[in-house]
Amino acid sequence: MTDDQEFYVFPVDYLKDFCAKVFVHFGVPAADAGQAADVLARSDLRGIDSHGVARLHSYFDMLSLGRINSRPNIKIVREKASVATVDGDNGLGLVVGPKANEIAMEKAEKYGSGWVSVCHTNHFGIAGYYPLKALERDLIGWAMTNSTKLVAPLWGTERMLGTNPIAIAFPACKEPPIVIDMATSAVAYGKIEIALRKKTEIPRGWIADKEGRMTTDPRDMIDGGAQLPLGSERELGGHKGYALAAMVDILCAVLSGANWGPFAPPFALRQEVPTRSVGKGIGHFFGAIEIDGLIDKHEFKKQIDEWIHVFRSTRPAPGTNGPLIPGDPEREAEAIRSKEGIPLLKAVVDDLLDISRKTGIPFEIK
Amino acid sequence: MTDDQEFYVFPVDYLKDFCAKVFVHFGVPAADAGQAADVLARSDLRGIDSHGVARLHSYFDMLSLGRINSRPNIKIVREKASVATVDGDNGLGLVVGPKANEIAMEKAEKYGSGWVSVCHTNHFGIAGYYPLKALERDLIGWAMTNSTKLVAPLWGTERMLGTNPIAIAFPACKEPPIVIDMATSAVAYGKIEIALRKKTEIPRGWIADKEGRMTTDPRDMIDGGAQLPLGSERELGGHKGYALAAMVDILCAVLSGANWGPFAPPFALRQEVPTRSVGKGIGHFFGAIEIDGLIDKHEFKKQIDEWIHVFRSTRPAPGTNGPLIPGDPEREAEAIRSKEGIPLLKAVVDDLLDISRKTGIPFEIK
Repeated sequence: MTDDQEFYVFPVDYLKDFCAKVFVHFGVPAADAGQAADVLARSDLRGIDSHGVARLHSYFDMLSLGRINSRPNIKIVREKASVATVDGDNGLGLVVGPKANEIAMEKAEKYGSGWVSVCHTNHFGIAGYYPLKALERDLIGWAMTNSTKLVAPLWGTERMLGTNPIAIAFPACKEPPIVIDMATSAVAYGKIEIALRKKTEIPRGWIADKEGRMTTDPRDMIDGGAQLPLGSERELGGHKGYALAAMVDILCAVLSGANWGPFAPPFALRQEVPTRSVGKGIGHFFGAIEIDGLIDKHEFKKQIDEWIHVFRSTRPAPGTNGPLIPGDPEREAEAIRSKEGIPLLKAVVDDLLDISRKTGIPFEIK
Repeated sequence: MTDDQEFYVFPVDYLKDFCAKVFVHFGVPAADAGQAADVLARSDLRGIDSHGVARLHSYFDMLSLGRINSRPNIKIVREKASVATVDGDNGLGLVVGPKANEIAMEKAEKYGSGWVSVCHTNHFGIAGYYPLKALERDLIGWAMTNSTKLVAPLWGTERMLGTNPIAIAFPACKEPPIVIDMATSAVAYGKIEIALRKKTEIPRGWIADKEGRMTTDPRDMIDGGAQLPLGSERELGGHKGYALAAMVDILCAVLSGANWGPFAPPFALRQEVPTRSVGKGIGHFFGAIEIDGLIDKHEFKKQIDEWIHVFRSTRPAPGTNGPLIPGDPEREAEAIRSKEGIPLLKAVVDDLLDISRKTGIPFEIK
């Protein structure tokens, strides 16, 4: 194991507390800081390392430069019964997202469903965090967000769309819930970064180079290439992944008045700022459905248990243990990491130590 | 061109009229018969040959055997403001679908959004038909349906899910609308049928054989194989296509009380009837959002025009003319076929002649 692959393990509450203090340092109110830290920590707990405290330095940079508003006036700017648009006032997506999701859930409890599009916001962590909150209230939950351009539409050669994730969760009775959380690109950007670090090839279908040719060299991504949408190429359905990413982009950004497509502002300092603005910030979209409005809730949850049993019993493909239920890997990671702690790469720990030095907030390797 | 690849061309209204008369022959009320024929004809107009009059013989078979109710009592069985469940009383999906979609659109106009899950229904034609109706009322529209099992979940070796399509449409101002209509499988079943007929290989990633191994021989599909979900395999995101198909299955069938997963009843006589029933018929899910509830409708439509301009200007990938906008191919087919007529394969014409003989309804090759 090379040095930069070394891991340090921290209790989740220690990391969460550090994150909250960093947000407070920049004037984020304590309750909001705790909320933002909770989203980041939940990502690490669920094994989605790319979206947890590994991103704290990017939030730190944006707050340091005043590019994110630490005390936003988040408000509904337009509304009709089951739908609303929220303006996040350029707050942390980790704060704006939970508030907008709360509005969608309240609408669901009142009108059977609730749908909230959000403009003038920033990156909101893992999409899966939000439907998990809906599950706590026995609702079906949705979350989507647009993001900085990385993905080329099918038959295009430029980055035009983010990895635009979709998350949805369905509650079960005795079984754990079904939790879908997926980017609409063929693969997460993090997997390309790993190949870059390890100097290995990547599968055909993940990226195209700056000339729009499929390539297995991950360096072509940083040399002006683009990720491919889910389905990768025409004959395997690349137009479908592109269409899903477009749907997310329009629901999150066109419907709310945020920046859509290639104009989504960057999350990190190293990313270029688009030369054109077509709205405010990036956009999210949240949804919630009250099951009892459609079917007896207990009956639904019992059927979901049975759905899970039936799909787990599918005859396995060669070399596998059979199909997983969406959410299995993240739930298993959460069970382990909530007991054993969160493993962080040395590079991430170095980032946290740098924040500690600059803010005076203590951070120690035990 | 071999004999079975021969085409005969018919005016769309001639085919529509024939379909409507066939439905009336089985006791379907005239208005419902016209509605059902309109769904089939729209599919042929839009170039989706597999879902148009090519399927009339299957509807004919099911009606002949009394397996579809020609005069259903379609009703809302549960409701709360923006959501409802509809029981289709085992009617034609081509009749139940438009009624349930109408309820979703009415709710959208009243509560900002409307979401209707449907049980005890049958195949409803192309999913794209329904959001096209929403566009006529300046709404954003959704439609999904579960269907007879054809697709294996990732890492499974059995057919467990239908090709479970998702359709969504967004209205534009001066540009034509964005219309997404996609199966959640890697490819439409019809493309495998074409390869079988032409005795050609198919791309790796479309199907697995009865042992769960990827194969390029289309005969493996009819010999107990299964289609693969969008993404095809783990490293290209096959778990995502499976998750989307699962979402469609649950929203359409678990939420309404229909048969989900492998228990969806068959559409055609040649398909096996599942040995277990877990609900009533198959299921659909419709949604509609009133744009004005979230943003000024005119502003939204102008931004969609601009979205379309920007995406059409993407630098093209080698050997292509650049990205399409979802709905382009179907709209172009509709423009041509509404003038020049619908080309039908000899096998389809033979089916229609067979129906004509058995019902006494005239059908002539001009």
